[in-house]
Amino acid sequence: PHDDVSFQVENVRLLDKVSPGRSRVGILYLTATHSIFVESDTGLRSETWVLHSLVCSVEKQTTTSSGCPLLVRCKNFQVLLFSIPREPDCHDVYLSLQRLSHPEGFVELYCFSYKPNIVEEERRQDWAFMDLKANYSRMGLPNSLWKLSSINQHYKVSSSYPADLFVPESATPPVVVGSSKFRSRGRFPALSYYSKENHAAICRSSQPLSGFSARCMEDEQMLEAILRSNPRSDFMYVVDTRPKLNAIANRAAGKGYEIEDNYSNIKFQFMGIENIHVMRNSQQKVLELCELRSPSMSDFLEGLESSGWLKHIKAILDAGIFISKAIAEEGVSVLVHCSDGWDRTAQVCSVACVLLDQFYRTLKGLMVLIEKDWVSFGHKFSHRCDHLAGDPKEVSPIIDQFLECVWQLMEQFPCAFEFNERFLITIHSHIYSCQFGNFIGNSQRERREQGELQEVGERTHSLWRYLWTNCADFINPLYRPDHSQTQGLLRPSTAPYCFKFWKGLYNRFDRGMHPRQSVEDYLRAIQEETQQLEEQLASHKQVQLLLVIILQIVSHEDKKLFSGSVRGFLIFINRRSASWRRNRVGVFPGRLPPLKRALMCGLWVATLLGSTLLRTTSEVSSAAAARAHPKLQTTARSSSLRTPNKQPTPSAPMAATRSPASQT
Amino acid sequence: PHDDVSFQVENVRLLDKVSPGRSRVGILYLTATHSIFVESDTGLRSETWVLHSLVCSVEKQTTTSSGCPLLVRCKNFQVLLFSIPREPDCHDVYLSLQRLSHPEGFVELYCFSYKPNIVEEERRQDWAFMDLKANYSRMGLPNSLWKLSSINQHYKVSSSYPADLFVPESATPPVVVGSSKFRSRGRFPALSYYSKENHAAICRSSQPLSGFSARCMEDEQMLEAILRSNPRSDFMYVVDTRPKLNAIANRAAGKGYEIEDNYSNIKFQFMGIENIHVMRNSQQKVLELCELRSPSMSDFLEGLESSGWLKHIKAILDAGIFISKAIAEEGVSVLVHCSDGWDRTAQVCSVACVLLDQFYRTLKGLMVLIEKDWVSFGHKFSHRCDHLAGDPKEVSPIIDQFLECVWQLMEQFPCAFEFNERFLITIHSHIYSCQFGNFIGNSQRERREQGELQEVGERTHSLWRYLWTNCADFINPLYRPDHSQTQGLLRPSTAPYCFKFWKGLYNRFDRGMHPRQSVEDYLRAIQEETQQLEEQLASHKQVQLLLVIILQIVSHEDKKLFSGSVRGFLIFINRRSASWRRNRVGVFPGRLPPLKRALMCGLWVATLLGSTLLRTTSEVSSAAAARAHPKLQTTARSSSLRTPNKQPTPSAPMAATRSPASQT
Repeated sequence: PHDDVSFQVENVRLLDKVSPGRSRVGILYLTATHSIFVESDTGLRSETWVLHSLVCSVEKQTTTSSGCPLLVRCKNFQVLLFSIPREPDCHDVYLSLQRLSHPEGFVELYCFSYKPNIVEEERRQDWAFMDLKANYSRMGLPNSLWKLSSINQHYKVSSSYPADLFVPESATPPVVVGSSKFRSRGRFPALSYYSKENHAAICRSSQPLSGFSARCMEDEQMLEAILRSNPRSDFMYVVDTRPKLNAIANRAAGKGYEIEDNYSNIKFQFMGIENIHVMRNSQQKVLELCELRSPSMSDFLEGLESSGWLKHIKAILDAGIFISKAIAEEGVSVLVHCSDGWDRTAQVCSVACVLLDQFYRTLKGLMVLIEKDWVSFGHKFSHRCDHLAGDPKEVSPIIDQFLECVWQLMEQFPCAFEFNERFLITIHSHIYSCQFGNFIGNSQRERREQGELQEVGERTHSLWRYLWTNCADFINPLYRPDHSQTQGLLRPSTAPYCFKFWKGLYNRFDRGMHPRQSVEDYLRAIQEETQQLEEQLASHKQVQLLLVIILQIVSHEDKKLFSGSVRGFLIFINRRSASWRRNRVGVFPGRLPPLKRALMCGLWVATLLGSTLLRTTSEVSSAAAARAHPKLQTTARSSSLRTPNKQPTPSAPMAATRSPASQT
Repeated sequence: PHDDVSFQVENVRLLDKVSPGRSRVGILYLTATHSIFVESDTGLRSETWVLHSLVCSVEKQTTTSSGCPLLVRCKNFQVLLFSIPREPDCHDVYLSLQRLSHPEGFVELYCFSYKPNIVEEERRQDWAFMDLKANYSRMGLPNSLWKLSSINQHYKVSSSYPADLFVPESATPPVVVGSSKFRSRGRFPALSYYSKENHAAICRSSQPLSGFSARCMEDEQMLEAILRSNPRSDFMYVVDTRPKLNAIANRAAGKGYEIEDNYSNIKFQFMGIENIHVMRNSQQKVLELCELRSPSMSDFLEGLESSGWLKHIKAILDAGIFISKAIAEEGVSVLVHCSDGWDRTAQVCSVACVLLDQFYRTLKGLMVLIEKDWVSFGHKFSHRCDHLAGDPKEVSPIIDQFLECVWQLMEQFPCAFEFNERFLITIHSHIYSCQFGNFIGNSQRERREQGELQEVGERTHSLWRYLWTNCADFINPLYRPDHSQTQGLLRPSTAPYCFKFWKGLYNRFDRGMHPRQSVEDYLRAIQEETQQLEEQLASHKQVQLLLVIILQIVSHEDKKLFSGSVRGFLIFINRRSASWRRNRVGVFPGRLPPLKRALMCGLWVATLLGSTLLRTTSEVSSAAAARAHPKLQTTARSSSLRTPNKQPTPSAPMAATRSPASQT
């Protein structure tokens, strides 16, 4: 149905996972950016869109008499099983999807062809919306303890670090550079979070190159400088987020962990979070579980257990809790690292930030946090999210785990987060979709200086501004920023029974999952009602204000009673009462006319008020009528990942099903 | 601290399960009905009450240097570990609790000593609150298809059945009696639910005594009569809720299941729900899991899986869904049975009722449902709930599973239930507590005719009325009776990922679980606010009405303008304006006084309105202030299971901890 359609196949069946009998027949179109399945059976035009950059794998299954099955798995956990009548067609679709879903070069990524209707000037401003410096100012930095260092301006000290970093005031450039040489990938200890209240700070780095006995004076001085920047504390924690065995194994390669005796006043702690390979395999098992056609309760619980997924989530949360308590309760600074300091370290530092600081529990705050601890500190999004055809061993759901930690916290503290589950899922989708430029590449340097990617900010759009513009979709109606448990440190329980399986993420494309009642939609309706009521009361207040003004003018009659509109009113009343006296005066005794005039005046004020009251009261009754027929939306919300135009064009960003059937 | 204290032990320690270091020291008092631990450490008087009839087991553990540990497990899943300094004291407490928690006779049960401040007349009326006949009328019964049968008036046909039963219009007494002789315990097919809309009905019975080949003409006629009472349907389902193997095994004992060929137009179906022994062992494993000190994620998930608990809950729900769909979607009647027809049959029929009929999803409705399908149909509460010292093999959490099925449904349909989780937990507690007379004994006959228990309704109180009186505590603020998905048949998903572990029931006494934010308390606060706003608007409407009345009187001036209060007002204005003229007339030109009087009059009306508006507006601002400092309760709600008096007296009904520490 579109110019950009490279080819189309007819009589394709889209099979229903749960009940394969209920498959739909239609035409499959392939465009440069999307595969679009258009159901031809029904009168309703039902479309299923699959963004190629979200396709994770394509699998041709054994041809049967009814066709050649093609299984398409997406990074947002949508799984589609097509059945294509002719094998050659199936093979064509297979090859095309293979190529389109794993581009060779950055320039092929969707963000470079995604052109929403936004003028260049606005697009540029949208990128400026995210301002990390403002966030450091919010923390109170720079100050007499922490300074902004320009040492990594051209990514010379650490190519994966951002250009702007905060280091202890007493850390001289030679100390920083010396420390960086003693750390994997030059990732020296730099500030991630600073507590204005008690000066405790979270710093992050990579592992030291200590091997079995090596030491480095500058690195030791660096840690001392961090300790000095927390004047009230006489020791600091060094948290190695890895299992002890992994850290020890690294010593053989000349890496490893801090030897407590070489550093003054540190307390060293392992956290036991597994590496990217374990996490990848773990999520793989979760996904296999989700693909089971009708698992028994035992299949599910055994599968969930053997995947280890929730165990890993718990480990990350436990580490975050340890750090956040060190900062908020003990007032002790913490240096966090893992191996390279861009996976587990990012997880743990950002979880600690969410626990510590209410700001990071707001819409804006979570965006800032991901920009700070993930994007700027060089989490390798393109490798981890498999943006390009690359090494499958580099792929790992590290950011998924962070988002799930936040979700688990939201389940425990439903009033502590400004955003809702949809916000997390939308961020998750867009990290993988490549629709926006934010997560392209593996480091700030790549995004700013590398050939192909150079100035990605000049040619793509920013997710953060997009989310902010659509923030109404992402507000948690239960958020209570003034609640005592919402402020300050969150103290979650990590007893196993407190963890839930995140079906909203992993099963959200399941048919039969969606007709559930959304508490959120319900609350939204309540909030709208409350707002209406408040607005009506406000308009009543205005009426009252009007009255007070009239009363004041009237009572200050000595000064300038009859000026302005009040004067006009009086003249009017006088004329009216005169004409009235002409017409009806005979009916009443002689001494009444002045009283009649008095009544007329009262009547005027009363009418003025009455009409306003009548108007607002009719609003009340219409609001009451609306309550009697509540606005609770039963249909699924239209996906925010879809462009508004109804025709399949390559600008429609993501996989989304338009079928009314699939939305009920 | 009380006359009824039989003895007391000092320097008892109440150990904290999670962190045994944080134990509390105090005095343990034993009264006739409660054990009361009074903490002596703190300035705050902290009390932990344990109702003896809720005590499930008492276990003396190996004496250590610090004392003799006594583990008390309660039927509401509270677990208390005391440490008593001297072994003989511990043994005394042990023996006392053993005896007090497992009385030999009904008369010793708590309901016979529970005497709240309710006069006899009211107590009697409270029992009349529950009216099953009214419920059958609500269903449209009796009618031309179903009649009220008096055949079981003196429990002659089936001693465990209620006196009043509905049977098909065409079922003659000989057919009913004949059928009853062919059914275990005489439990012939009787009506549980009838659909006014399509005449389909759920009937329940026990298994037929069919053995390998026996048949019974009256039983076959009975099923035909049921089929005839559903004129639009040409077949009916017979659902045996047991696993097929169990049913087959019963044939050897002359019992078994319907042989399809012997009955005309039945479709026979097994459901595979396990028996009371499997369920008892399953819950036992869940409780062992809950008692683990700090289980790993694997311990928890493996334990949950191997307990089989959620599998059983799913099986019961699946059976209920099958039946509810047969009724609502196919319009086909269903006969449900298991072995005796008082355990699985009660579960499945009542789950189907909850799915089918919105009424059973209300506060009143759930009470009626439990009264109908459990209490009246002879679920053996005293055996299953271990009310007296009896056969431990008769104990089984059958009603627990029903309540959990309802809870799982509430999680999937948060707006479909009028009641909240607290309602289910309170019912659960009181089924076991024996505080009320409702669940004493094993059948209606026992409660009405058996020696000791005779006329239990004459000497005890009714839970239903108590719950109804306290219904404000049990309302689900999300309930939307007008929502389309709330009405008619609920269609839950029973995919394994849709089931949750009910930590609100099993872990509710865990320290560290309670400081969570309660969505419900929050919603309650919102609702109160909304109500306030609505009330304020209503008062504004009254002002408006007043105005309209004044305006109407004024405009009908020709008729009787100056009568009543308006006349008084005019006289008042006239006098005021006269005195006013005396005092200030000199200031204004001669023609103004009448206008001044007009203004005065306007001012009067305006002041009248203004003061009302001011009042209501000040309410608005106080409401706004309240919003700024929200009422969200962070402390746990005081237990409804506690009597209001502050001193430990034997009338305080249940185990509850009053310690402020344990409530945070």
